[in-house]
Amino acid sequence: MVNLTPNPSFSLTIRFQLPNRAGMLASVTQAIAGAGGNLGHIDLIEQTRQFSLRDITVDAASTEHAETIVQAVKDLPDIKFINVYDRTFNLHRGGKIRVESKISLKNQGDLAMAYTPGVGRICHAIAQDPEQAYNLTIKQNTIAVVTDGSAILGLGNLGPEAALPVMEGKAMLFKEFAGIDAFPICLATQDTDAIVETVKNIAPVFGGINLEDISAPRCFEIEDRLRRELDIPVFHDDQHGTAIVTLAALTNALKLVHKPLDQVRIVINGAGAAGVAIARLLCKAGATRIYMCDSRGLLCLDRLDLTAEKREFAVTQSGTLADALVGADVFLGVSAPGVLTPEMVRSMASEPIVFAMANPIPEIQPELVVNDVAVMATGRSDYPNQINNVLAFPGIFRGALDCRAAALTTSMYLEAAAAIASLVKPSDLDREHVIPSVFDERVATSVAAAVQRAARQDGVARS
Amino acid sequence: MVNLTPNPSFSLTIRFQLPNRAGMLASVTQAIAGAGGNLGHIDLIEQTRQFSLRDITVDAASTEHAETIVQAVKDLPDIKFINVYDRTFNLHRGGKIRVESKISLKNQGDLAMAYTPGVGRICHAIAQDPEQAYNLTIKQNTIAVVTDGSAILGLGNLGPEAALPVMEGKAMLFKEFAGIDAFPICLATQDTDAIVETVKNIAPVFGGINLEDISAPRCFEIEDRLRRELDIPVFHDDQHGTAIVTLAALTNALKLVHKPLDQVRIVINGAGAAGVAIARLLCKAGATRIYMCDSRGLLCLDRLDLTAEKREFAVTQSGTLADALVGADVFLGVSAPGVLTPEMVRSMASEPIVFAMANPIPEIQPELVVNDVAVMATGRSDYPNQINNVLAFPGIFRGALDCRAAALTTSMYLEAAAAIASLVKPSDLDREHVIPSVFDERVATSVAAAVQRAARQDGVARS
Repeated sequence: MVNLTPNPSFSLTIRFQLPNRAGMLASVTQAIAGAGGNLGHIDLIEQTRQFSLRDITVDAASTEHAETIVQAVKDLPDIKFINVYDRTFNLHRGGKIRVESKISLKNQGDLAMAYTPGVGRICHAIAQDPEQAYNLTIKQNTIAVVTDGSAILGLGNLGPEAALPVMEGKAMLFKEFAGIDAFPICLATQDTDAIVETVKNIAPVFGGINLEDISAPRCFEIEDRLRRELDIPVFHDDQHGTAIVTLAALTNALKLVHKPLDQVRIVINGAGAAGVAIARLLCKAGATRIYMCDSRGLLCLDRLDLTAEKREFAVTQSGTLADALVGADVFLGVSAPGVLTPEMVRSMASEPIVFAMANPIPEIQPELVVNDVAVMATGRSDYPNQINNVLAFPGIFRGALDCRAAALTTSMYLEAAAAIASLVKPSDLDREHVIPSVFDERVATSVAAAVQRAARQDGVARS
Repeated sequence: MVNLTPNPSFSLTIRFQLPNRAGMLASVTQAIAGAGGNLGHIDLIEQTRQFSLRDITVDAASTEHAETIVQAVKDLPDIKFINVYDRTFNLHRGGKIRVESKISLKNQGDLAMAYTPGVGRICHAIAQDPEQAYNLTIKQNTIAVVTDGSAILGLGNLGPEAALPVMEGKAMLFKEFAGIDAFPICLATQDTDAIVETVKNIAPVFGGINLEDISAPRCFEIEDRLRRELDIPVFHDDQHGTAIVTLAALTNALKLVHKPLDQVRIVINGAGAAGVAIARLLCKAGATRIYMCDSRGLLCLDRLDLTAEKREFAVTQSGTLADALVGADVFLGVSAPGVLTPEMVRSMASEPIVFAMANPIPEIQPELVVNDVAVMATGRSDYPNQINNVLAFPGIFRGALDCRAAALTTSMYLEAAAAIASLVKPSDLDREHVIPSVFDERVATSVAAAVQRAARQDGVARS
């Protein structure tokens, strides 16, 4: 439906041999550029008097596009194509995380302290006082990233094996952004009871559980039950991560247009995990006029097809998304590509705020309404105002682990959102900068501090 | 019952200040030695014209012994005791393993390849061909170390939290000795069905399952069911690791006394996980005359208290361990401290082989029968011939992972034992050297190669 720009997710390295004559390399770069490829590094691998061997890195927009680019190089006279490799596949080969020992085991003394018989004293100490597990084991800094593979990214129900590369990536993000040891757990079941039992059974090792990519409505019950039955934080990132970052960005966007949260009319399109969590958190933050749509239009009390979670936000009116948007102040999309039209945006109130967060293709291409909106945000890194959960989840768990939180509370979420929003200074706040960059190093520590403070106020901190 | 020698599992660092006068440091070392402490490093931390600050490392034999040693230092005139810390506890603080990212995530390009949107292509590739999980995820090199905490080392049923330091230690051993990424799973249930379901549910991430410290007889059913229902190797180390290393050592010990395995009379004392697995593997290796005892004596067909596993090895005779040992060639103990007396050993056939493997205190102190046995082995590192599972499990899983084995077979175990035994050259073989050192770097690779070869012969290799 929409042409994507070349990006590193389709990154290739093409190796070719070319004669040492003027203009030869230029013919290759021109061919690639002509095919729409985005040129990166050009490396010289080997050079003889007559020939050079080079690697050229190119970003494409899709698999088909990558093939077109490679063909363009192959078609060049005088250039000998050697091979091509897909940098993304190459990066994933063998997996992206590893388990490392913190201590070397080079002699009997090391073994006797780290393993038997020395470890026996540590076991006894924990058996006598189970809280000691937080001091003497990995529990203090370790979380599980748990999925059943039922709603992987925007790709759908691909099962547990196919989910693992995403969960490994998530574990990398936890380490990179918050120093947390996260381990992927991909479940061979999509049964709610079995998921709850399994997570409870493996919980002793972990200081927290990050639920990931579990489809609605099962995700609500699974999270609710685990929160009730475990004494460690349980966080479904698709819900709360999205909700926290959305609230942070919306807080700042509303400052720009001088509209108060408790008065604006907000239309949320998409009533899955993210949509419901956004609606709930916005209510807690003070929003009063929320209208939710799913693929069948407004959630209306008359509808017989609503889950309990959708019913929470059902209104007396019925209508389409277009109907709901007339005169609305805010559009929050967590739905599907291209469902928002420029006409709909132009029917909104003055200075409308549009967050088109469907991934990877937003509800509307920002270019189409650039002059019609006050603030536009997406989930993408190649447009301004990226709504990215990585602004929230590392700091949430960092804060929770640091105070050994027994649970996460709504005020921890609200404080996290406020902390993220506050990192955009009033002088820096503008329509293309309502949210900090994911690489802003202050984010995780600010969120962690806010979460820890809220945990202490709410009485869920244990240290 | 038996006095242990000082060892690194009770290792202390004592800090003290002493005047710069001749004989002062000697007074400290004498006091420690006088109290029976084993001196290690002596570090100079700080020195002024009048005083020195020193750290002294001491191995004790027990917690009480450590207190006696510290008191001896405190009692010295002129020496100012500063503090003491327990090196073993210190080493365990915060846990002993961590999860690391293999790739740095420093910019949008890194994120786009390792996480969304790039990772989506990897997910699709695996969804289309689940075998690709072995190429594109951590599955190829990752195993779970699973326990329910019911039989931790020799300490008993201490529960899942108290088991975690042991499982972390095991994960370290897998990394150190075979480069395997192992992650601890400590289960909050001891119900057989729940354990089987939980392990099946978490299996997609793992290339193998190492069961650990699960009590008999549940361990037999749990392993059997998981082996049947999973398509990855499942290995209960307490059973098969012990059996493989015992067989390896016994193979070499029998060479020394020139007795063939199929003719010797073998008494196994202890009919738990290890005892049953040893008996089963020895049968597969050709042993024909096995007599097993538990705490009530010989497993006799008349007894009504035998589990199915014990019944496998029940004989028509009844009697005590002492009765069974008269004229026996081999004693294999996986039971309890001190249950074997010198008189029993002296009642055995000529050139008896005694493996007293109870940990940490053997069935008989080797010193008591040094002239009565042909070969003595224990589980301890401070005597010759240490029967240590670490000789087997790293190589077993290395070999299984390298060929993507779907299962482990008896011939893989037998080949592993043969590979370990073969590393003691005939010219090096003597009564104090029937088994390689755990630090012999050839062991894991030799075992892995043997296991892989057997897997191919048995048709369970998948690559």
